[in-house]
Amino acid sequence: MKNKIYFTPGPSQLYFTVEEHIKEALKKNILSISHRSNIFKSLHKECIENIKILLELNEDYYIAFTSSANEVWERIIQNLISKSSIHFVNGSFSKKFFDFTKNYNLNSRLIESFNKPYDFNIKYNNEDLIALSLNETSTGISSTNEKISEARKKFNKSLIALDCVSGSPVIPFNVNDVDTFYFSVQKCFGLPSGLGVWIYNKKCLDFCYKKINKGEIVGSYHSLIKLHEMNQKNQTPETPNILAIFLLSNVINDMNNKGLNKIINEIEYKSKIINLTIENHPKIYHSINNEEIRSKTVIVGETVNNSELLIKELKKNNLIIGKGYGNNVNQIRIANFPTHSKESIEMLCDYISKIDF
Amino acid sequence: MKNKIYFTPGPSQLYFTVEEHIKEALKKNILSISHRSNIFKSLHKECIENIKILLELNEDYYIAFTSSANEVWERIIQNLISKSSIHFVNGSFSKKFFDFTKNYNLNSRLIESFNKPYDFNIKYNNEDLIALSLNETSTGISSTNEKISEARKKFNKSLIALDCVSGSPVIPFNVNDVDTFYFSVQKCFGLPSGLGVWIYNKKCLDFCYKKINKGEIVGSYHSLIKLHEMNQKNQTPETPNILAIFLLSNVINDMNNKGLNKIINEIEYKSKIINLTIENHPKIYHSINNEEIRSKTVIVGETVNNSELLIKELKKNNLIIGKGYGNNVNQIRIANFPTHSKESIEMLCDYISKIDF
Repeated sequence: MKNKIYFTPGPSQLYFTVEEHIKEALKKNILSISHRSNIFKSLHKECIENIKILLELNEDYYIAFTSSANEVWERIIQNLISKSSIHFVNGSFSKKFFDFTKNYNLNSRLIESFNKPYDFNIKYNNEDLIALSLNETSTGISSTNEKISEARKKFNKSLIALDCVSGSPVIPFNVNDVDTFYFSVQKCFGLPSGLGVWIYNKKCLDFCYKKINKGEIVGSYHSLIKLHEMNQKNQTPETPNILAIFLLSNVINDMNNKGLNKIINEIEYKSKIINLTIENHPKIYHSINNEEIRSKTVIVGETVNNSELLIKELKKNNLIIGKGYGNNVNQIRIANFPTHSKESIEMLCDYISKIDF
Repeated sequence: MKNKIYFTPGPSQLYFTVEEHIKEALKKNILSISHRSNIFKSLHKECIENIKILLELNEDYYIAFTSSANEVWERIIQNLISKSSIHFVNGSFSKKFFDFTKNYNLNSRLIESFNKPYDFNIKYNNEDLIALSLNETSTGISSTNEKISEARKKFNKSLIALDCVSGSPVIPFNVNDVDTFYFSVQKCFGLPSGLGVWIYNKKCLDFCYKKINKGEIVGSYHSLIKLHEMNQKNQTPETPNILAIFLLSNVINDMNNKGLNKIINEIEYKSKIINLTIENHPKIYHSINNEEIRSKTVIVGETVNNSELLIKELKKNNLIIGKGYGNNVNQIRIANFPTHSKESIEMLCDYISKIDF
């Protein structure tokens, strides 16, 4: 291998068409156009339409751009929670979202749920919002469609928020089961970091209006209402990351042309190869034993010895995998995103199989 | 002219080295590296050092990255104002900053000051923060160094915030006269939009700590304290716009190599050419008559007829200038940024001189 391949769980390997789209953006002066121009409005419209096609969104759902998923967490707290929320936490990112509620002096609750499916058999006080994750990037835990539907039925007085950062668009779920969901573009979309995509429905808008009517603070340029008002005009409140919106639109167009089903089938196939490699390796074990909740996009392995040895050995061959999140020195994380070809995953797995560490 | 040249006041023409730096970023896999990696930390460190050299910042000032100047306004409100602020408003952007304070239920004051230097002879109640603009992008009004120093003396119980969005680094001011200032990269730095740079001193940190101790909300991942904690480790709280940080670092390095004084001299020279062109044209007048406060980077002209005719005529020759901000249909705005060569400004002015409209 001459060139490095990044199997890191985000930022990751660029989607294979990104470089060409960047060149096209430069050629078309996309980086110099005004964000108030008709060219930008067309670009914005096209991007929104492409997302709606890819995710099969119906007209009840709207799309806004933020700068990151971290920003979406904060905007959800400012706009969609008045008093309290329940956060089902199965890793560092869902925990971080919960921690943000404390910064906003909210009286939210954390329900931990590691290495097992969500258990919704808890005390429910009609909290404003329930926070779930489709795919926890730090631990490699996914949620099943059934669990998300169950949450919708159980917590029927609350808004349901689903973190899809490293899940969309390749881990399908029933969109109508949630009121808001979000992702960032540097994971499954294989794009440069610096853009978050926030999807919300009318119930979210209604909640936000109620907050405003009560005199509560919902933020300024990126309040849900301001974002909504502007995106209905195919604009953004501030000068946005125009390049990111252009690239997202184009990569989604490529994905739509390929067909999401085909991409999902490839993800399934590649995850099986990675899982088998882990199962056959004498010094690596699955971190998530329960197959039902084992992520297909971020596969986490526990290593008998410090994983750095394995990571370094792969790096010598220009294969870059992720280390464990935080202080998990005996873990590896392998991203299985749409940009990772079957061939590249097979090659990675061949190398892993041969390495004793 | 075969290729378009953008003299719009942001986003604008890319700095002439940007395309090469983007290619370099792709080649070096900058868009795939982890924001927690040592490569990113080095990149962050280098960018901060380059900014400090360019702006001659001493060790009392720190630098954080946001996604836009709009975000900086919001973060200033959350972190550096407890009760009230005074906003000297001389255009739509300084007005927008003031409007954000209302979203945060603050009891701030607006002092309008169009087409004349700031008048600080006002009632002063030791407000938490005084907001000034170095250069108002909507109206083309600059502030003199003397006025900023005067504000420091007069409002000595307040933090002084200076909006440098379309002024830095080519409109110099005495940094020690302000406690915080900020700019976005798509103006004078000629970069793709999607990054704000927020500079603050210890007094700002102290103010923020006081807010926290009083139990006031200062935000979450982008509170000043969190930004500061992370940037002291050459990191960012969230996955940032890594490409933008890489490009900013490289373009500032190019500017430092050229020498800021030389760049400023060129800005002066080019502004004189644009001013003369306006003065000699029978159908264009200066919007800002007072030379003392007329911007050198965003030059606004009043047109006798609807400016669209002039703008369209120039566009036919691939010269793109800005229209008036908002509903000002009888205005043009011409950006004079470091990337605009003397030759390109001369050519633009030649065309303008020849157009009757």
